[in-house]
Amino acid sequence: MANSKYEYVRNFEQPDVLLPNTWIVVRIDGRGFHKLTAKYSFEKPNDRRALDLMNAAAAGVMKELPDLVMGYGISDEFSFIFHKDCTLFERRASKLTTTIVSTFTSHYVFMWPTYFPSVLLTPPLPSFDGRAVLYPSVTNLRDYMSWRQVDCHINNLYNTTFWALVQQGGLDAKAAEKELTGTLSSHKNEILFSRFKINYNNEPEMFKKGSVLFRDFEISSSAETTAPNPTSAPVPSDSATSPDIAPPAPLSKTAAEKDRKRRLKARIAIEHIDIIRDEFWDQRPWILSGKAP
Amino acid sequence: MANSKYEYVRNFEQPDVLLPNTWIVVRIDGRGFHKLTAKYSFEKPNDRRALDLMNAAAAGVMKELPDLVMGYGISDEFSFIFHKDCTLFERRASKLTTTIVSTFTSHYVFMWPTYFPSVLLTPPLPSFDGRAVLYPSVTNLRDYMSWRQVDCHINNLYNTTFWALVQQGGLDAKAAEKELTGTLSSHKNEILFSRFKINYNNEPEMFKKGSVLFRDFEISSSAETTAPNPTSAPVPSDSATSPDIAPPAPLSKTAAEKDRKRRLKARIAIEHIDIIRDEFWDQRPWILSGKAP
Amino acid sequence: MANSKYEYVRNFEQPDVLLPNTWIVVRIDGRGFHKLTAKYSFEKPNDRRALDLMNAAAAGVMKELPDLVMGYGISDEFSFIFHKDCTLFERRASKLTTTIVSTFTSHYVFMWPTYFPSVLLTPPLPSFDGRAVLYPSVTNLRDYMSWRQVDCHINNLYNTTFWALVQQGGLDAKAAEKELTGTLSSHKNEILFSRFKINYNNEPEMFKKGSVLFRDFEISSSAETTAPNPTSAPVPSDSATSPDIAPPAPLSKTAAEKDRKRRLKARIAIEHIDIIRDEFWDQRPWILSGKAP
Amino acid sequence: MANSKYEYVRNFEQPDVLLPNTWIVVRIDGRGFHKLTAKYSFEKPNDRRALDLMNAAAAGVMKELPDLVMGYGISDEFSFIFHKDCTLFERRASKLTTTIVSTFTSHYVFMWPTYFPSVLLTPPLPSFDGRAVLYPSVTNLRDYMSWRQVDCHINNLYNTTFWALVQQGGLDAKAAEKELTGTLSSHKNEILFSRFKINYNNEPEMFKKGSVLFRDFEISSSAETTAPNPTSAPVPSDSATSPDIAPPAPLSKTAAEKDRKRRLKARIAIEHIDIIRDEFWDQRPWILSGKAP
Repeated sequence: MANSKYEYVRNFEQPDVLLPNTWIVVRIDGRGFHKLTAKYSFEKPNDRRALDLMNAAAAGVMKELPDLVMGYGISDEFSFIFHKDCTLFERRASKLTTTIVSTFTSHYVFMWPTYFPSVLLTPPLPSFDGRAVLYPSVTNLRDYMSWRQVDCHINNLYNTTFWALVQQGGLDAKAAEKELTGTLSSHKNEILFSRFKINYNNEPEMFKKGSVLFRDFEISSSAETTAPNPTSAPVPSDSATSPDIAPPAPLSKTAAEKDRKRRLKARIAIEHIDIIRDEFWDQRPWILSGKAP
Repeated sequence: MANSKYEYVRNFEQPDVLLPNTWIVVRIDGRGFHKLTAKYSFEKPNDRRALDLMNAAAAGVMKELPDLVMGYGISDEFSFIFHKDCTLFERRASKLTTTIVSTFTSHYVFMWPTYFPSVLLTPPLPSFDGRAVLYPSVTNLRDYMSWRQVDCHINNLYNTTFWALVQQGGLDAKAAEKELTGTLSSHKNEILFSRFKINYNNEPEMFKKGSVLFRDFEISSSAETTAPNPTSAPVPSDSATSPDIAPPAPLSKTAAEKDRKRRLKARIAIEHIDIIRDEFWDQRPWILSGKAP
Repeated sequence: MANSKYEYVRNFEQPDVLLPNTWIVVRIDGRGFHKLTAKYSFEKPNDRRALDLMNAAAAGVMKELPDLVMGYGISDEFSFIFHKDCTLFERRASKLTTTIVSTFTSHYVFMWPTYFPSVLLTPPLPSFDGRAVLYPSVTNLRDYMSWRQVDCHINNLYNTTFWALVQQGGLDAKAAEKELTGTLSSHKNEILFSRFKINYNNEPEMFKKGSVLFRDFEISSSAETTAPNPTSAPVPSDSATSPDIAPPAPLSKTAAEKDRKRRLKARIAIEHIDIIRDEFWDQRPWILSGKAP
Repeated sequence: MANSKYEYVRNFEQPDVLLPNTWIVVRIDGRGFHKLTAKYSFEKPNDRRALDLMNAAAAGVMKELPDLVMGYGISDEFSFIFHKDCTLFERRASKLTTTIVSTFTSHYVFMWPTYFPSVLLTPPLPSFDGRAVLYPSVTNLRDYMSWRQVDCHINNLYNTTFWALVQQGGLDAKAAEKELTGTLSSHKNEILFSRFKINYNNEPEMFKKGSVLFRDFEISSSAETTAPNPTSAPVPSDSATSPDIAPPAPLSKTAAEKDRKRRLKARIAIEHIDIIRDEFWDQRPWILSGKAP
């Protein structure tokens, strides 16, 4: 019984290869997490167990996909970065996106009992959606990361103040929302401090900065011992004369395999630090170079 | 701290809305399941627990996504069908695909202990990738389904014979493979019967036909009591004069909500039957019409 | 001097093959024709020479591209239809679209002196842009055509009334526009008749209906001698049981070549008739079947 | 007569906006020019009138589209470059591609009598197809240009030798082709010189280098008076620290309009020079910066 009669249906599959030499960001988001946080009584404004579970799932993704150079998470969202030279799955968008979403979900559900030992999952289960976005230059990529980290700050300051007003100030949600409408950051800081003795600066870094995941090769010693020189950017340049992005000068097969192994072996670091300024990137040049040091 | 400086990065997001009035098939596949079946010692050629788990996960997906009109699974793959009129997530490809993959993965991992009570999952965890394919006509869609079911048959006959040769015939994998090279179906049937007393026709329907999932509204009585009339196709026609597919005559909001509720309430049937001939479709007209009866 | 060092740039080319089994409409539009009609003093509301030139250019396109089954033009726009089974240029969108736009432009400029013998073209020259849109069903395709023809009617009634108010009624543009704001068709008909003794029904069919181009195989005799039967649609049905759209049953090479030759030889008819009702399509079944009779 | 019933067909139009911050190359090619060159008896291996006509048409395109920063033509193909910051037509691929193809065709047909005064065009008329390709970095873009110029050289050396063998050597096409199979550049140079006294280096630059079109602002004086310094690339860098490609710092409206006018006013230069080495780019920094000096 041959299958040739029906095989023509394969011609309806359409290619979705992503443009070469561009950074691939896959951002995933919890589906219906507003409902889910209520169902499982997550603590407000931040539930540390939930954030730790997100980070553990993201670390699982980075371990299974050594091509990823970085992850960044806030609340129920996570962004994963593939290097612009990445050729995993021939850069097929569906394959890259679904693989990340599936691997993340798998770890999230698998490790739920570790982080919520007394809370039983029941259907509908946690799930995530995701999409890929391309960024042609390092500037664009870093601006994307900055955008997410600024968003983390804005949301967290708002949520911290909102829940202080509700939990300690005795306001209902509507009144708290009204109180905050149109307020600047400085006003929120003031509300927190004057009414609730909360110094926002002393809030946990994880809540204020989000979670940054990367492969933990040792911090480059030159960066540690000498002050990073802002004028001699160690990040790869995309300029016409730079050999770094000259036409693919691919690693030899042996070198590529060795590089891959180093990446697989490296510990996944989870830190809560500034990724807007140059320092983070200057000290970890392997993130933007895509080469294990 | 405004975020406007970085917000321009949103302009790099590109729309991926799928063409209207086409059937959307999302097919997902187990990632690295060759390795996974070895790691967890799945039975060969078919592990009923594993197939039941696949079906349970697929049923979970159909329960959480009432827009799905059908599912079809074989081995470690599953196809899910959205009706051509579906407007879920504005038909965004990434959103549809990742939601299905994530929901499936979530249920797969969550229900693993039910189907493999004595087998502990360990990382790397099971995961799935997926993609969406569009089919403009009912014929194309049914040919896609037929293609998968024929593939199920071809693969299962091969695998059944291969593993009989190995498990009962004492051949090693290489010898078994060589023995089967270039054989027709009839030869494989003969090998099974003459050497191993296996009548392939008596093999479980689940292995031979795969698993068909749909919402179990009662079989339409007219279809039951009268012989289906092949010349008066009850399937929706795409012809120019047919009112069925005339420009979107969307249900009223109330009707749509009622329809949605009926679909949510319906039991998900899991059957192992022929979907190549007309009978299956004639008896369940709601699958192709997309309207709960 | 080998070229291999640079050839990697070809990898940046991305495929743009259009979904099979869908109707391809390429619509082109004059660029900046508002300015151009002023520059060359086109008659208002319709310049017959300009419309005849559009039609001549469109006929040139249909002669050079036998795969086209139909064209429809109004004002400075033209829609060209490729049959859903068309495989020209492997259905690459850029190639189909640019070829039509270029061939049209070529004929437009080449034949300008024939239609405007005393008007010399000078740069900036007339040009057109275009795009491809897919329609999965015959209903969708015919609704597209109806949409354009209704638009033709609406615009022409408006323009006829507007220019009557200006040219014969002595109003300036602003006053005429104001007078017509919010008027129904019946009001415009009345203005034309009561003030200017113009019976809109007697306006030229070309202005009211636009221009329909198709290959002029003789009108099918059955359609001529017997009344078209609206219930037995001779147009191809997309239904699941119809053999017409079953998986591509491509013509044999000889048959395909013969079919192509018949199409090349056929006269291009230019008519100004209703394409909204069934009659047009019933009488020319080869347009939707894509097969020369 | 409202059009709302059919207007839903607009939902089938799909967006095709090109990724921001990437260089857009639109390459157009003559359709069936092998046949056309025979029909109009173009001189071999190069017909100067035909090349001059191509260049004149390309110059017409650049004059009508001030957003173009450069053009490069060989034989019957032309590449046009939009700057990576270009926002013309919201970067819609179809619109950009068809506009260039149409404008080029328009000028080609319009100016034919100027370049071929004694050769009457007859249908089928000359036409061109085209496509857009994106290049994320300046290196990628320059490699694309280098690829085309190397191709020009390879093809021209081959054609020059082939036609010398045929026209002066008395070989037929088959014999000439056989003679050249597998030969290196050096062999072809030797054949030309030893048999036909042709020094390939003395062939016209137009044939050897192709035609480079750009806006002729005066050569930057610093570049003229001092030797270009290959280590201090004046071309815009894509590096993270470069202000040049920082998030769109768009020109003010007035500045943008002024810039546009300068570009419109500039003469279109047509030169036959090397664009592989840095010199060309260093001396005309406005090409890669996209800003009129």
